[in-house]
Order: sequence, then structure tokens, then C-alpha cells
Amino acid sequence: MRVSILLFENFETLDVYGPVELFGRVPDHQYIIGFYSLTGGIIKNHHGVSVPTEKADSLMRGTDILLIPGGIGTRKEVDNAAFTKLIREIAEKSTFVLTVCTGSALLARTGLLDSKRATSNAIAFDWVVTQGKNVNWIRGVRWTVDGKFYTSAGVSAGMDMTLGFLADRHDLDFARNIARQIEYLWNEEVVINQ
Amino acid sequence: MRVSILLFENFETLDVYGPVELFGRVPDHQYIIGFYSLTGGIIKNHHGVSVPTEKADSLMRGTDILLIPGGIGTRKEVDNAAFTKLIREIAEKSTFVLTVCTGSALLARTGLLDSKRATSNAIAFDWVVTQGKNVNWIRGVRWTVDGKFYTSAGVSAGMDMTLGFLADRHDLDFARNIARQIEYLWNEEVVINQ
Repeated sequence: MRVSILLFENFETLDVYGPVELFGRVPDHQYIIGFYSLTGGIIKNHHGVSVPTEKADSLMRGTDILLIPGGIGTRKEVDNAAFTKLIREIAEKSTFVLTVCTGSALLARTGLLDSKRATSNAIAFDWVVTQGKNVNWIRGVRWTVDGKFYTSAGVSAGMDMTLGFLADRHDLDFARNIARQIEYLWNEEVVINQ
Repeated sequence: MRVSILLFENFETLDVYGPVELFGRVPDHQYIIGFYSLTGGIIKNHHGVSVPTEKADSLMRGTDILLIPGGIGTRKEVDNAAFTKLIREIAEKSTFVLTVCTGSALLARTGLLDSKRATSNAIAFDWVVTQGKNVNWIRGVRWTVDGKFYTSAGVSAGMDMTLGFLADRHDLDFARNIARQIEYLWNEEVVINQ
């Protein structure tokens, strides 16, 4: 399956590379990772990370797994109509759509999360809710699943969600084994106390 | 402080970007992250990640924090004399040296870990030990500290080590607050059961 990660300036580092580590760990290159952006080229963030990306036009017929990270850059991108339109068009045609942290605010702006369960990170939650008033926002969980949409809480919760996604596609022991390989203590419980 | 990350082909994704997320989260850009390699240019790994790097010559007078990731590429790089010589020269002159996962095998090959406490990831441990017979290898811990050298267990343990490093430089609450921001459940205990 293709995992297509849609980047923008000032994405959150671990929102991207936590899931990349986990998908990359699956044997036999069952998940092939690609990095995309609205215009293509090098995308940078506030942590000093640079990523070569392809122009997302090539995803207009959809992808297997669309992953949208969060980060401080989402505060600007929610008002970038060209970007949210692009997200909507790709997400509609994709088999699965995964968001990490405030990536759910971007997806909410497309309307595709309306009436669906979704979450986001704790610190930004009140802002995220304003980006999709018809979304069934759920606070205090590590991740949510609603049909083809997976959304996670803040940053490292994207890893828990990705392991949950792998458990759903393969099985629980498969996901636990991936977590064990990277010595990650997976928060298997979707609900955590805050 | 400059955090200088030394990359090579087929480094492990999260070994790099876990620490980058945490250092990047510290306010006021107190930690400035840079990516380096033996020859400079784009460095790729087996997860489909590409990173623009600078040639590490510019680090020959040392850096504040040298970070060496692990990954499958270390199996080849331990026998790359030019690379281990470069690591030795930079590490000797740097204030702190941090390794993640099998990055400790690379550092062990320089001799700089001789008589020092160090660890590595569980799965590769028996191999890593052969790369430095005079190192005081410690199995079953999340990370070790010995003077300026910090070494961690596998992959995600690099995040625990980085939080430990931040706790040592700032204080425990400072590190806990960074972990909380990214909703990471920090394994504060250095020793874990295996």
C-alpha cells in the first residue's frame, strides 16, 4: 500500500516520522512511503527539518493511505483554500485517511469529518473544535476510528494510532511485534486519563 | 546549543526524528538542529526518507551535541574507516555525544567508549558488543550516561534518553513538560524489564 504524506511548512516533526518508522518497519515493503506537498519541492519546519516532496497533483486519483500531520503550520494552512481543496479531493478518493495532532483541523475544514468521530491534541483542542463545528470531537482519547478516517491526539499519539491501524489491517500481535522491535511502549488503550 | 546529527545511508528514521522533535520543542530555539554526513548531499534510508545534509568537515572543531543514530546501515558503516575516523575526531572535540540504538556500535568502533557504560537495542545487542570489547555494555536499560556520553536502547528509547539529557541540562520538570506537550509517556526509569 502507498502511504502518501501531505506536508506543508512548519509541520510537526514526529507527526510525520513516528508513523514513517512504523510503516517502514513492516516487512517486505508492504507500505511504500512518499512525501507530497501543494507545490512540490523542499518543505521545511521550525525544527530545522527539510524534506524533498513531490507535487501532490499525482495523488488526485487518490492513494491507499493519506496521512496529514499537524503542527504550528496548520494555524495558517486551515485558511489556505487551495490546500484544503486539495486535501478534500485526495481524501475523498483515498482508501484511508489518517491525521495526527492538529492535522484533524485541516481535514475538518474540508467537511469530510462532519458527523464523524475525531480527536486532536489536548493543548490545541479548543481551537481545533472551531475548525469543524459538525464533527463529533472526542477529547481525551489517543486515537479515533470512524470508517476510513483515523485521527490521533498530540504528536506521539500518532504512533499509537498507526499501531492501531496496523492492528486493524493485520492483527494485534502483528502491531505489538512492530512496537516491540522499536522498543516502543504502545499505549494500546484508546482512552487515556488526562 | 548546536545539535549536529551525523547521518549515513539506511539510518533508522525515529532514531533521528524522535530526538529532533524533543530538542525542537525546547522554547526560544535553545537547540539548533543540523544534519551532516561524510560527503554531504541527500542521505536516504530504507523507509523512503531523504534528508539534505551538509558535509561534516564543518564539524571538525567539534559541536555542542553530536547525535549518532542507529539503523541497518550501521552494519556496513562500522567497517567504513573514513566514517569511524570522522566520528572519532568530531566526538573527541564535542561537548556531548549521544547515540541511539546501534549508533553505539559506530561510536564503540572509535574506541571512545572503552571502559565506559553504554547500551544498545535489544535485538542487535550481541552484535553490538562485538564492536567494542572493552566497553562496559549494559543490557536491559533505556539509556546510559557516562560523562559526556549518552547511549540509548532501541529506536524509541532515543526519545527517553533525549528527555533524560534535557532533564540533566535543565531539570526533571522541564523534561516532563516537554514530554507532556507531545503527549509522550516518558519511560523515566532507566532500567526496564525485558
